[in-house]
Amino acid sequence: MSENDDAGDSRDGGNEHSDTGTNAGADELTHTTAEGDVQMVDVGDKPDSERRAVAAGEIRLRRSTIEAIREDEVGKGDVLATARIGAIQAVKHTWETIPMCHQIPITNVDTDFSLGDDRVELRVAVETTGKTGCEMEALEGVTTGLNVVWDMVKAVEKDDDGQYPDTGIDNVRVLQKAKHRT
Amino acid sequence: MSENDDAGDSRDGGNEHSDTGTNAGADELTHTTAEGDVQMVDVGDKPDSERRAVAAGEIRLRRSTIEAIREDEVGKGDVLATARIGAIQAVKHTWETIPMCHQIPITNVDTDFSLGDDRVELRVAVETTGKTGCEMEALEGVTTGLNVVWDMVKAVEKDDDGQYPDTGIDNVRVLQKAKHRT
Amino acid sequence: MSENDDAGDSRDGGNEHSDTGTNAGADELTHTTAEGDVQMVDVGDKPDSERRAVAAGEIRLRRSTIEAIREDEVGKGDVLATARIGAIQAVKHTWETIPMCHQIPITNVDTDFSLGDDRVELRVAVETTGKTGCEMEALEGVTTGLNVVWDMVKAVEKDDDGQYPDTGIDNVRVLQKAKHRT
Amino acid sequence: MSENDDAGDSRDGGNEHSDTGTNAGADELTHTTAEGDVQMVDVGDKPDSERRAVAAGEIRLRRSTIEAIREDEVGKGDVLATARIGAIQAVKHTWETIPMCHQIPITNVDTDFSLGDDRVELRVAVETTGKTGCEMEALEGVTTGLNVVWDMVKAVEKDDDGQYPDTGIDNVRVLQKAKHRT
Amino acid sequence: MSENDDAGDSRDGGNEHSDTGTNAGADELTHTTAEGDVQMVDVGDKPDSERRAVAAGEIRLRRSTIEAIREDEVGKGDVLATARIGAIQAVKHTWETIPMCHQIPITNVDTDFSLGDDRVELRVAVETTGKTGCEMEALEGVTTGLNVVWDMVKAVEKDDDGQYPDTGIDNVRVLQKAKHRT
Amino acid sequence: MSENDDAGDSRDGGNEHSDTGTNAGADELTHTTAEGDVQMVDVGDKPDSERRAVAAGEIRLRRSTIEAIREDEVGKGDVLATARIGAIQAVKHTWETIPMCHQIPITNVDTDFSLGDDRVELRVAVETTGKTGCEMEALEGVTTGLNVVWDMVKAVEKDDDGQYPDTGIDNVRVLQKAKHRT
Repeated sequence: MSENDDAGDSRDGGNEHSDTGTNAGADELTHTTAEGDVQMVDVGDKPDSERRAVAAGEIRLRRSTIEAIREDEVGKGDVLATARIGAIQAVKHTWETIPMCHQIPITNVDTDFSLGDDRVELRVAVETTGKTGCEMEALEGVTTGLNVVWDMVKAVEKDDDGQYPDTGIDNVRVLQKAKHRT
Repeated sequence: MSENDDAGDSRDGGNEHSDTGTNAGADELTHTTAEGDVQMVDVGDKPDSERRAVAAGEIRLRRSTIEAIREDEVGKGDVLATARIGAIQAVKHTWETIPMCHQIPITNVDTDFSLGDDRVELRVAVETTGKTGCEMEALEGVTTGLNVVWDMVKAVEKDDDGQYPDTGIDNVRVLQKAKHRT
Repeated sequence: MSENDDAGDSRDGGNEHSDTGTNAGADELTHTTAEGDVQMVDVGDKPDSERRAVAAGEIRLRRSTIEAIREDEVGKGDVLATARIGAIQAVKHTWETIPMCHQIPITNVDTDFSLGDDRVELRVAVETTGKTGCEMEALEGVTTGLNVVWDMVKAVEKDDDGQYPDTGIDNVRVLQKAKHRT
Repeated sequence: MSENDDAGDSRDGGNEHSDTGTNAGADELTHTTAEGDVQMVDVGDKPDSERRAVAAGEIRLRRSTIEAIREDEVGKGDVLATARIGAIQAVKHTWETIPMCHQIPITNVDTDFSLGDDRVELRVAVETTGKTGCEMEALEGVTTGLNVVWDMVKAVEKDDDGQYPDTGIDNVRVLQKAKHRT
Repeated sequence: MSENDDAGDSRDGGNEHSDTGTNAGADELTHTTAEGDVQMVDVGDKPDSERRAVAAGEIRLRRSTIEAIREDEVGKGDVLATARIGAIQAVKHTWETIPMCHQIPITNVDTDFSLGDDRVELRVAVETTGKTGCEMEALEGVTTGLNVVWDMVKAVEKDDDGQYPDTGIDNVRVLQKAKHRT
Repeated sequence: MSENDDAGDSRDGGNEHSDTGTNAGADELTHTTAEGDVQMVDVGDKPDSERRAVAAGEIRLRRSTIEAIREDEVGKGDVLATARIGAIQAVKHTWETIPMCHQIPITNVDTDFSLGDDRVELRVAVETTGKTGCEMEALEGVTTGLNVVWDMVKAVEKDDDGQYPDTGIDNVRVLQKAKHRT
């Protein structure tokens, strides 16, 4: 993977759509026009490039739930298998989930779960050969994958009142955004 | 809204599907069978009830980006309008996004954004008259709505290398899960 | 079909959501809050009723194209069969196509094409047992069905420059909206 | 934008699929085979080109409704923002809405609303780099966008009987279809 | 499960839509009108009932592939977990996959794989509380689930020419269709 | 159509992802990692090629049902027209139906029904210019198309108990998988 040089040709269109000053302002929001109307960004003049984005996030769970996932993992692993599939499908559906996203050809999705003592981390890498970056796809993969984990362990996370005092999703971030894979 | 008494008849089916002990274990994961195979939960015997769930989460942004959203908000508000619509659509699509979810009749979705100095909080309330709870719908609304905000402000959040050092989603949680709305 | 008495309990929620005056104003747009934010309408308190809506519209075509459809109709009829299916699918997908629509249980869809000399009229009737009216479903059926006709006859409607000087969709309207089918 | 020279290489496949005579006939309907069976058109031999299509249409509304939209526009604009998003999503979903359409890479969508005294016009421009034209995408954007406007103003368009005597969609047309954007 | 008494109130509408004679004929195809036009069946007058359908089918595979699935099953089981999820999602999407199907509330889906020497059998049971039967949902679950198995083992089923001489899906059938679950 | 030479560069990724021995094993299942986790296959390094796959299958029906389809065929043909459209749409949706499939640009779909005495055969040919083969698309077209036929003739296939003793789908197979169309 080469050094990243992705500024200015992201999906947002970068400078060609806004007179970038030193301070961000509403006129630099490339998904809105000068009049403030929401818009897609024209990517017709962008070349097809190999692009990659990696996002990550984690879900806080009870220690006993983590144990249950580990046991399941040792046995069949269907909890995480289901979350993996949910994450991959979310990546592929990002063009309809995020209203202003373009549909881009996804060439690869990697999902990586790691179990801590009181949390599960999910890392999703997405690769495309399209005209825009794929960090939104990676983020959708992470948040949906973590939501699927939540769904799969609801029965053991809820307290006696049916609430989720211990459960939460945190630290969702983009680890890397790069172009020109080598 | 009455006191919540939702434990035991959640979408997971609660006790009738697992011999609940005092410690959580893989055999209490109601989305997997005794053999560990992933499954939907049978809700055929559950009554239709009025149910409500509220989830929330926040996205950390640069202060200058918050200003841009405020300016846009004062003007047209299309950044948050787009995120609202993304959140509502995500709520309605949860049955296909989260593999083991049932499709339930959504009767209401409320989205509430509040802008802090360095973050935007999104709160999503979902109501249904179905046979299972709707916290996954509320969570999908929150995470997708925040992802849409991210998408809408990408141009002003990226640094010169096209990375997002300051941006992140945190504190995604279920605030309330209730049944028998009054 | 009984007399219609649908005012005030439509999907919009009617009067209970707005202090209706004699003049329409932005504060009566029930899909926006008092603050102007887009919202779904809460239908949780509405009863399930039998509802019906009928919409219609027409597509202007060259006389020679109408003849081609008639010939096809005499033979196989796949042009109109495809448009019928497109219309029915559009009715079923309205909850995701129109952002603020609820998903309602469609119990029946009738599609009726009539061929004039220079136009094809499509009439779509939709019935539901849900909590809101179904005129948006009927309208989506009509406009999509007519668009499918357009797609199916493109080759014979285009002029030598690849343009459509004669083709157009007009007169899309709601013929009837009723509740309490008898 | 160069002069249009799109005849003969449209999505329909033009002459290579039909022995074009001087009069249109069922044998020139390229979406049906010689036997009259519905079919997609083979675009495998078509080159990728830059293509653009512009469609427009209008919705007739009460003058008081137009005023409400203007007020909303001055304030937040969520009525038209929602319609814009509905139009853009409809453009992206055309490959599944119109049964015989191919999925093509949409590179840009422009939506332009103009408010008259008693009507709102919507103009949608779509650009692609694919193997077929995109006029169906533009038409779907227009009709869906106008249907969303209808949905957003239902409460103020209905008469006391819950009917829509004044509301209608008209004049839906393709303004331009072009290839080889320069 | 009570004795089945489902004839005459199936999704097809049975006798009330056709003058049933002793021999089947085109006029008894309830998804086409008397004029032969495709149509949905009106289920507005049908009561909501508890309904269940079970379908099954099998995929022929190389013995070595069955071994690979068994090994995987012993280890993680992701091949069959993925097929299970594909089957469940196909069940939930039947209303859009099969053009004339209604959307019905699925309350339960059971998937059961059994591995033979040279084939994998999949059995899918679907339950609903809707107005029509759910055998199409069960069939879609079976055929899609088996297709997912095919997809997951492609690398070991193809011969040196990239063909599938040994692979096939057979014996897809409805085992049971019942109403009024007790 | 050139000779097929598709082994080794199929969607599965072939040898580059597994140390192929003489016997198939779980470590050769390219849709699972060495650890057994489900994954998409990275196709980023594969060239775009013209690819074609043909699949077929058949549905066993009562002789009287075949007659009804023939009558309908002579008249309007909407039974098979609907099945054709269902098959084509299923081909286009394969990327979401089969969890590990990539979305590829479908350039052509051919559907061919032939009516025997007691069965209907459906053959579906799919062509793409993408980075992976399209046999899953052809298989999804065949199984869904046959399921649509089943749905369309339910009323005349069911016995007096509402069961389907004579109906079944068999012999679903890939007839051809090829690359480099000439």
